[in-house]
Amino acid sequence: MCVACAHTIHRAHRHFGWNRDFAPALTTRPGETIHFECVDAADGHFHAGSTADDVRTLDFSLTNPVTGPVFVEGARPGDALKVTFHKFIPSGLGWTANIPGFGLLADQFPDPALHMWTYDPDAMTPALHGSGFRVPLKPFAGTVGVAPMEAGQHSVVPPRRVGGNLDIRDLTEGVTLYLPVEVEGALFSIGDTHAAQGDGEVCGTAIESQMDVVVTLDLVRDARLASPRFTTPGPVTRHLDSAGYEVTTGIGPDLMTAARESVMHMIDLLTDAHRLTPMEAYMLCSVCGDLRISEIVDQPNWVISFYFPRSVLS
Amino acid sequence: MCVACAHTIHRAHRHFGWNRDFAPALTTRPGETIHFECVDAADGHFHAGSTADDVRTLDFSLTNPVTGPVFVEGARPGDALKVTFHKFIPSGLGWTANIPGFGLLADQFPDPALHMWTYDPDAMTPALHGSGFRVPLKPFAGTVGVAPMEAGQHSVVPPRRVGGNLDIRDLTEGVTLYLPVEVEGALFSIGDTHAAQGDGEVCGTAIESQMDVVVTLDLVRDARLASPRFTTPGPVTRHLDSAGYEVTTGIGPDLMTAARESVMHMIDLLTDAHRLTPMEAYMLCSVCGDLRISEIVDQPNWVISFYFPRSVLS
Repeated sequence: MCVACAHTIHRAHRHFGWNRDFAPALTTRPGETIHFECVDAADGHFHAGSTADDVRTLDFSLTNPVTGPVFVEGARPGDALKVTFHKFIPSGLGWTANIPGFGLLADQFPDPALHMWTYDPDAMTPALHGSGFRVPLKPFAGTVGVAPMEAGQHSVVPPRRVGGNLDIRDLTEGVTLYLPVEVEGALFSIGDTHAAQGDGEVCGTAIESQMDVVVTLDLVRDARLASPRFTTPGPVTRHLDSAGYEVTTGIGPDLMTAARESVMHMIDLLTDAHRLTPMEAYMLCSVCGDLRISEIVDQPNWVISFYFPRSVLS
Repeated sequence: MCVACAHTIHRAHRHFGWNRDFAPALTTRPGETIHFECVDAADGHFHAGSTADDVRTLDFSLTNPVTGPVFVEGARPGDALKVTFHKFIPSGLGWTANIPGFGLLADQFPDPALHMWTYDPDAMTPALHGSGFRVPLKPFAGTVGVAPMEAGQHSVVPPRRVGGNLDIRDLTEGVTLYLPVEVEGALFSIGDTHAAQGDGEVCGTAIESQMDVVVTLDLVRDARLASPRFTTPGPVTRHLDSAGYEVTTGIGPDLMTAARESVMHMIDLLTDAHRLTPMEAYMLCSVCGDLRISEIVDQPNWVISFYFPRSVLS
């Protein structure tokens, strides 16, 4: 529970997709702190005993539910909604799936796969994967946004200028996010909580995990933001960078091809050196490895690097 | 000087571009440590009193000279050359230029610009930019590679599968880089030394700075690498991440457009909040800000984030 929260929004108040005409679950003044009960991206489809077969029965009309929306009094188009993440209250159970047709290497990984995780929601020590891998945890919400100005129902899958399915792994405790407001009241919602994810979320899923989230919603008048921005008060990778990184590269004139190659090379390295199957390596890359653009100026070839934290291997 | 080095290659032994037929400056056995005198990417064109006018007279046939090549006895196509970076010995003088036609936002910054840097090559404290900005330093070589198998002269500008102008800012002291060998002897060269650079090198130049480099060259037999990879023994961003980051985003179906937008939004933020000109902000982004791929799976929109370290602003 949240002792300083003005409101709690229960998980019954979750919705699918974005729509400026959704009725608010709550109306609040700027500056108030709200406790959101969020569900995971599969809306509770998976449980401790789930297997890859359960990926086949996933209902895509029920993915990435978000809790809300919250109507913030006085919020107007052109303002920014200032979202401060105070606390994530994780559940201790998580999942990572390879969903056919989804993910950076979907063509190479056509079969469903599922890895169920358990972790200590109080100590938040690294989650174990098999006998040899320890994934550091740092919870955040994969989907956080406000309603777009265009009328009608909008898919939750693509992120857009008002946020949504951003999957930015650094939107963690202590961070302040600014979202462009496009409709009266902003209509803020949040969900798709993750216990850990790397930059890129390359297999398409993180350590997906139900948790509650405490945030303060405030306004910045007439901010005229073109897309989300955020401020982190401290370092973002110290939970996993202590032992350095193994890094593979993709080099060429197309950023997407180079990104794919850098991940393929890391999967090769992990399967050769660490007795993982390619599918295990791919899913592990998604929950803790980072895609970075090393250079984007040395025409005509760009360098994408995939960083895998060595602490996970030790 | 390097007391443990078996050889020194003087800066007179620099070459322009890559060519399997260049005569070796040195023949060495695997496992030996070599001191390379490198020059900066403009081959000494700029000096302490240089101005933007001097960018106009830059001779592009003399850019990115590299020192070498070194013929490593026994290196064969299919092997990997293992390059361990022991030491960078910096000069204390550096430059960052906006070169017309070059850089991620070349269309928006058509005019030449030059910023000359001085820094303490012993203490390596952050380099000062104007009155309010302190850029942490971490030297590396922007160009490091071996000769490609295809005969003839190859431009030094684009990186390729044998390395070259990689501009990977984490190839710093203590790191081990593996390069695919494509010709007998590998023919290793190094240069284009940088005192600091962000991921992306967005304006096209870093803090370009002449320095010497000490590396050990060794072989891994039959490694069959498709492109360079490297191992960092420890964290890569702790010199600049202590105060966290300001982060802007670009969101859309094209990675290049999203990358450009994320940098444009950061330039707007820096000019609005920190009294920099857009050109100053762009060049500062290049020497210390990082392009990261936050998600590359939520079809059809990807999220690129540009991370600017707040320690630079304090």
